[in-house]
Amino acid sequence: MSQDIALKMYQRDRHRAQALFKHSPTLSKSASLEGDHLLHRFEPDWSKFEHVYAHELLPQKDGCKKTSRFLQEVVDVLIDYVHKSNDRSTKVLDFHHPHTLREMMDHCLDIQEEPQNLEQILSDCKETLKYCVKTGHPRFFNQLSTGLDIIALVGEWLTATANTNMFTYEIAPVFTLMEDIVLTKMRECIGWENGEGDGIFAPGGAISNLYAVAVARHTVMPDGKTKGLSSLPRLVMFTSEHSHFSIKRAGALLGIGTDNVVLIKTDERGKMIPSVLDAEIERAKREGGVPFFVSATAGTTVLGAFDPFNDIADICEKHKIWFHVDGAWGGSALISQKYKGLLEGVQRADSMTWNPHKLMGILLQCSAILLRRKGLLEASNALKAPYLFQEDKQYDVVYDTGDKAIQCGRHNDVFKLWITWRANGDTGFENRINGLLDMSHYLQQKLKERKGFEFVLENPQFINVCFWYVPSSMRRLTPGPERDARLHKVAPKIKAMMMEKGSTMVGYQPLGEKPNFFRMIVSNAATTQPDIDFMLNEIERLGEEE
Amino acid sequence: MSQDIALKMYQRDRHRAQALFKHSPTLSKSASLEGDHLLHRFEPDWSKFEHVYAHELLPQKDGCKKTSRFLQEVVDVLIDYVHKSNDRSTKVLDFHHPHTLREMMDHCLDIQEEPQNLEQILSDCKETLKYCVKTGHPRFFNQLSTGLDIIALVGEWLTATANTNMFTYEIAPVFTLMEDIVLTKMRECIGWENGEGDGIFAPGGAISNLYAVAVARHTVMPDGKTKGLSSLPRLVMFTSEHSHFSIKRAGALLGIGTDNVVLIKTDERGKMIPSVLDAEIERAKREGGVPFFVSATAGTTVLGAFDPFNDIADICEKHKIWFHVDGAWGGSALISQKYKGLLEGVQRADSMTWNPHKLMGILLQCSAILLRRKGLLEASNALKAPYLFQEDKQYDVVYDTGDKAIQCGRHNDVFKLWITWRANGDTGFENRINGLLDMSHYLQQKLKERKGFEFVLENPQFINVCFWYVPSSMRRLTPGPERDARLHKVAPKIKAMMMEKGSTMVGYQPLGEKPNFFRMIVSNAATTQPDIDFMLNEIERLGEEE
Repeated sequence: MSQDIALKMYQRDRHRAQALFKHSPTLSKSASLEGDHLLHRFEPDWSKFEHVYAHELLPQKDGCKKTSRFLQEVVDVLIDYVHKSNDRSTKVLDFHHPHTLREMMDHCLDIQEEPQNLEQILSDCKETLKYCVKTGHPRFFNQLSTGLDIIALVGEWLTATANTNMFTYEIAPVFTLMEDIVLTKMRECIGWENGEGDGIFAPGGAISNLYAVAVARHTVMPDGKTKGLSSLPRLVMFTSEHSHFSIKRAGALLGIGTDNVVLIKTDERGKMIPSVLDAEIERAKREGGVPFFVSATAGTTVLGAFDPFNDIADICEKHKIWFHVDGAWGGSALISQKYKGLLEGVQRADSMTWNPHKLMGILLQCSAILLRRKGLLEASNALKAPYLFQEDKQYDVVYDTGDKAIQCGRHNDVFKLWITWRANGDTGFENRINGLLDMSHYLQQKLKERKGFEFVLENPQFINVCFWYVPSSMRRLTPGPERDARLHKVAPKIKAMMMEKGSTMVGYQPLGEKPNFFRMIVSNAATTQPDIDFMLNEIERLGEEE
Repeated sequence: MSQDIALKMYQRDRHRAQALFKHSPTLSKSASLEGDHLLHRFEPDWSKFEHVYAHELLPQKDGCKKTSRFLQEVVDVLIDYVHKSNDRSTKVLDFHHPHTLREMMDHCLDIQEEPQNLEQILSDCKETLKYCVKTGHPRFFNQLSTGLDIIALVGEWLTATANTNMFTYEIAPVFTLMEDIVLTKMRECIGWENGEGDGIFAPGGAISNLYAVAVARHTVMPDGKTKGLSSLPRLVMFTSEHSHFSIKRAGALLGIGTDNVVLIKTDERGKMIPSVLDAEIERAKREGGVPFFVSATAGTTVLGAFDPFNDIADICEKHKIWFHVDGAWGGSALISQKYKGLLEGVQRADSMTWNPHKLMGILLQCSAILLRRKGLLEASNALKAPYLFQEDKQYDVVYDTGDKAIQCGRHNDVFKLWITWRANGDTGFENRINGLLDMSHYLQQKLKERKGFEFVLENPQFINVCFWYVPSSMRRLTPGPERDARLHKVAPKIKAMMMEKGSTMVGYQPLGEKPNFFRMIVSNAATTQPDIDFMLNEIERLGEEE
């Protein structure tokens, strides 16, 4: 018995044990002698996977050991990647143009008629990771979602292993309960009484916003579900000119039409101007349209602006229009006592989008659409398919969430959030968010101190810091179209150079009349002040080189 | 140096090494002496995680070792679950009613203000898995997607670790190339010349079908994108009465209206009747509607029927209507030389949905929408958001897929499919699919041999086997409404009992006038003939008990 267990342990850990023994002279002899003796007595040598194929793993009858060994081997590769992602001496990415990368990976990209052995599969994994952008690297600032949270990673690994579908309690009992608990907690953060209301996790903020428009549309015109929109009056929706494009796309997709998505002017800080909203609603009515939906933004994509929610809520109440808040980016500020004031008035919303995969560091994807009133999601989407949502089940089918969704099968996006929230507590998340804001303030301070950097917007409300780098050769140009035209080309060039070098990644874009500028985001808890300095030095250096 | 490495190895593997040494008397003394000596000299004892918290892991400066150790510990828990899922002596599930489960898990479900230590987090993971339905268990037959493929699992673990977003080549270079390669291969399977065309991975078949309707709508009425549907003629779409409800839901969501989703009658085998389709199209035209979309199904959800694609393609050509094939379930048959004939004519489709997360055993979610012509996806969905899809990037932006999508951020669903396809080759997938069909034929044979089992449909086309179990007490009843009413209650009762017992899970539903019956699916490569026998014995035994 004891020998049997030892053998199992040894087989499982042979690779590791050998490495251990190799470097520990006292142990090596006895260990390798006894271990190898045991091993050779019972087992063929399959320490290498060259002669092992996928079909030999579980569920193959004798696949247990091979499966464990193979998974362990893969995990070693993955853990190594996690370490490298956190190692500042490694590049953020190893950039190659699409056709070049394709050629470089030619030996492993194509799918063949015959299976590849597991040694090759391991090599494929390593090769893939080699050319991945390290989104968890402390100097990756390119997106609103950066970083690699270890607990969230654990959450996604477990989610994959449990491999189930969120549509019914029947096959996702624990995760269904967790979804209920987490959505309730998020609604409490919004300020809805007792966390009551409704909601569902959706594959990303764009789909969460789509849900909001769909439910609002159904609420104002329930006949649309059966009759369609061709026989109904022209619906009109409103959002700020700085809002995320997914609002407009929802208008296109849901048959509202982008002409009927009115983009409301913003002030110089990127916040929707309430009086303009009110006037546009009036105008739409005069022109025979039916205003039904206003989307305000909590944290716009570029400037990080928060619309004036209370003013907008007043207008929506006056006109009896659905009030949605797109908090995909800024919603997470609700967890911080220090910054939740940015969302003042949000509790008056009918619905809110909130992406924990952004500021809360949860792995992609994790987005929720939250609704103040119960029943509307289901009224809007339910079709009561009898092969999925049988009413004669033995348990309370109110726990089956599938008929609220616009998806059928739905990935479990809640577990990783739930476990990360458990591990951090409210206080951990609050510290995280406050720390990121501190880092943003540090960056702003540095920008003020350095030459050649100009703010697009000084003292922004949130994490986003938008700035130009003006190379010294351009600093004496008179402000105007010519300077703008030259400045427009600077950020793309610097970005291209930093990518070729692999040193760091920062996003850029134009905005209205403003030429291309950098939008710097710190949403990665790995980033330190020296990383910020590094990034600024890099922009300056590359900007002077070009 | 060597001592240093040994120490590192030892720390990482202390837990394992101890277990190994414990059972290996010859090794134990020297190992534990030297190991513990090294350990105590340099490091505090954190073999337990009771005093370790999430914020001490990476990216915390000295978090490397703790992170490795913690991830290893989690992986041990996950591998244990994988083994249990494949162990027939374990239950498929440990069923509890929602309120009971909530009480049972009360000590760990709620999210607290303060963080939980990592020992608790490990315990949370174990507790969660304890109450999960083992969807990879050889006796789990409840859904179209069952099983736990190890390579696909590896794929999802790596995907989580690489944690990136599919919207641009910039941050997903390798995965973007893989998506192109895999979609091309899928289009080749359909039979489109050189695999040309377009496509994208979507979060599930329902959304893939939604894409198809949206693109078809845009193609027939491009003005709808800007003007909306209220000013346009009434659009009408067609699908069989046995098709998946997501087609109807797409009609509701996209503003077509469910009244304008015409459900075409099927024959006794569940196949759409082409002459009825033709007549309904004519009728819709006479009534002022604009027929624009026909969805044929490759493998219906309940009976597994394949519509007559060539006949339907003829009708669509005649009327110049978009021809879509919903192959979410049956599309994978294209990989089998033996069964691809089921999809004869599919190459004439304008679009096709295909879910590798069903028959190909890929983890949830993995679904593709494939299109015969290039450019339509983008025409339908693009909004050219300047902060994401800059035209002045240094690489060829044709590789940025984001503006084709209705999502903004998009999960990487391709890597797990790519790596599993690499590991299995075409032949491996073909063997898998043929094997599942063989198992379905075995089940049909057994049903014919046993008493009390009645086919809903004899000799089905595909894997789905639909049958009633008629308890002996009901076998002498005259066929008719009274017998049907009693029979209607049998499957739910048996299902409830098998769930309470945790022995197996099979789905049931009514269909039209037909009372509740079992729909048996073998899509799990782990299932053997004795598992089929077990399931039939179980139904019989529980059916007689009730």
